[in-house]
Amino acid sequence: MHPEASNPTPSGKKSELTLLAMIRKRAERRSTCGETFPSLRLGIGDDCALLRLRPGQQLALTTDLSIAGRHFSLDWHPPEAIGHRALVRGLSDLAAMGARPVAAFLSLGLPRELTGNWLNRFLDGFLALADAHQTPLAGGDLSESPLPVADIVLTGVVRSGRELLRSGARPGHLLYVTGSLGGAALGLAQLEQWAAQQPRPARRTQSSFAEPRPLRIPARLAPSLAPHLYPQPRIAQGLWLARRAAASATIDLSDGLSTDLAHLCQASGVAAEIDAAALPIFPGATLDQALHGGEAYELLFTAPPSARIPRRIAGIPVTRIGRILGARADAPQIRLDTAAGAQILKPGGWRHFT
Amino acid sequence: MHPEASNPTPSGKKSELTLLAMIRKRAERRSTCGETFPSLRLGIGDDCALLRLRPGQQLALTTDLSIAGRHFSLDWHPPEAIGHRALVRGLSDLAAMGARPVAAFLSLGLPRELTGNWLNRFLDGFLALADAHQTPLAGGDLSESPLPVADIVLTGVVRSGRELLRSGARPGHLLYVTGSLGGAALGLAQLEQWAAQQPRPARRTQSSFAEPRPLRIPARLAPSLAPHLYPQPRIAQGLWLARRAAASATIDLSDGLSTDLAHLCQASGVAAEIDAAALPIFPGATLDQALHGGEAYELLFTAPPSARIPRRIAGIPVTRIGRILGARADAPQIRLDTAAGAQILKPGGWRHFT
Repeated sequence: MHPEASNPTPSGKKSELTLLAMIRKRAERRSTCGETFPSLRLGIGDDCALLRLRPGQQLALTTDLSIAGRHFSLDWHPPEAIGHRALVRGLSDLAAMGARPVAAFLSLGLPRELTGNWLNRFLDGFLALADAHQTPLAGGDLSESPLPVADIVLTGVVRSGRELLRSGARPGHLLYVTGSLGGAALGLAQLEQWAAQQPRPARRTQSSFAEPRPLRIPARLAPSLAPHLYPQPRIAQGLWLARRAAASATIDLSDGLSTDLAHLCQASGVAAEIDAAALPIFPGATLDQALHGGEAYELLFTAPPSARIPRRIAGIPVTRIGRILGARADAPQIRLDTAAGAQILKPGGWRHFT
Repeated sequence: MHPEASNPTPSGKKSELTLLAMIRKRAERRSTCGETFPSLRLGIGDDCALLRLRPGQQLALTTDLSIAGRHFSLDWHPPEAIGHRALVRGLSDLAAMGARPVAAFLSLGLPRELTGNWLNRFLDGFLALADAHQTPLAGGDLSESPLPVADIVLTGVVRSGRELLRSGARPGHLLYVTGSLGGAALGLAQLEQWAAQQPRPARRTQSSFAEPRPLRIPARLAPSLAPHLYPQPRIAQGLWLARRAAASATIDLSDGLSTDLAHLCQASGVAAEIDAAALPIFPGATLDQALHGGEAYELLFTAPPSARIPRRIAGIPVTRIGRILGARADAPQIRLDTAAGAQILKPGGWRHFT
């Protein structure tokens, strides 16, 4: 709306420039355009960033919006975890395309009260994960906002023809998942339970962020909360699958196995069956958490029976959990086989606008 | 936060899928991957979009965050104008790099109440401008949010070495601007004035969007409000400057002439003087509005005296408004020459976090 436009003052916008300079400095300490990251030619500081691709490369691009109260809690979540979790969503999308990360962009809307220590800690988490995947922060936008929001853009490269799509699963193909399932959902449940027991100020209202003091999570909880607070994107596994052209269809588990498998089946025009006994359930998690829990950020992929899928890819276990069936109008899209018999598995993961 | 993750229900997320399907359908009606838009290989529907570049092309990328109450008003602005204005910010950044638009991405956070008619009208404005610049909507994200937010990502291509940077202005170079100045600021002032006279319900609070009914702006006001409600990005002019390698430095006027010229001077390590009498002021606008008014989305560029800059580029007037000086520690960065003498021009445009 730019209210200042009609009522100009000569004070400039030092505060925004100071913040931008701080973010730029932190981003640049870790990256040098044209050296460490040959595909990023121009980062923060002009009207656009500039990327170069090698011949035969495609650019993969994804955006993910994180909103306070919806994707994270200012009360429960350490700012580092909020930064990490915002970024992992995009990195995981790149992994699911078989793309190598090139650059990240961050559009951040924050109330003034969060632009000091909170923002620094948010960037700690964001940049640590970006570093771990050699992904420079190359641009973005910054605005004052009564509600904290962070939209991240991830760009990556994948060789033409080697991209991992959702649409190539065929009847008879086998269904695999990396890592384990339910750990993030279990961690969230434990975090909620623990937070509910803590004395804390009355519930924050939307416009009161005067004293953002996230709870201090005790060290004993850290291991079991890690899959929720600091999930890892399966970049190396996606690159392996793309390089070997091993997968016929791939998706990352952001909304939950039941929901994301439904997406994959719909894109491929197939159905699927899952063997409940085969699921690599995170220790302590329930079958429901493994089936429907969101934010696992594991890769779910299919491969023809002839493909040689190893038990581990880049150090992470890979488990065969079912197979692809032909789609039939009179049959369920996803069947869950358990010791007690077969049942229909309906998408039960993350929902918006419901 | 994915609260559902720990408390799964079998209801799925039909509503989000319905919305996504609607947006996808509207986006696809206008674009066909691989035909009309050869650089966009894969649009909405997988984990990432995929873009291809021709040899020698670079990808330009920019993001711009628009937030209700900050960048637009649900009370004053027609939803079409909000969609148009969100997109123009990114297109204008591409213009300032000399890039040709390839694809747009939209991350949208909306309260449920705005996902019906309001969203459709928002998309009307967004897609009409996207169409006018052959820019398909190729992806994004959608989330429920108590505060309406729209982050747009624009990608474009520019030949390597032909990008228009902010940093190439040198002492003696001449300063030019496209179009006219102050029209958007004048339009905003008129809109504010008119809106203040209208009977309307009590001021919306942040969490009450139950009946979004923007005011109906009378037709007689439309022409003078157009520069504010529907500013045009100078894509064709940016492409002309890049193709001819005519400009030594370029920036788009989003924050206001005084502020954006300061950015250009800082990036180039120079100072500048403006001739007030030469400014192409929009009819009815004040000198202050021309100097400090934001959201003009004109291109401000410099060129050596030897460059032949025509009076019009692609139908839009181009005006010489000053020249570049050497930077001196004891001299102001920007000097404004008026009939009454010279004065220092301090950045007085759009400010955040102040």
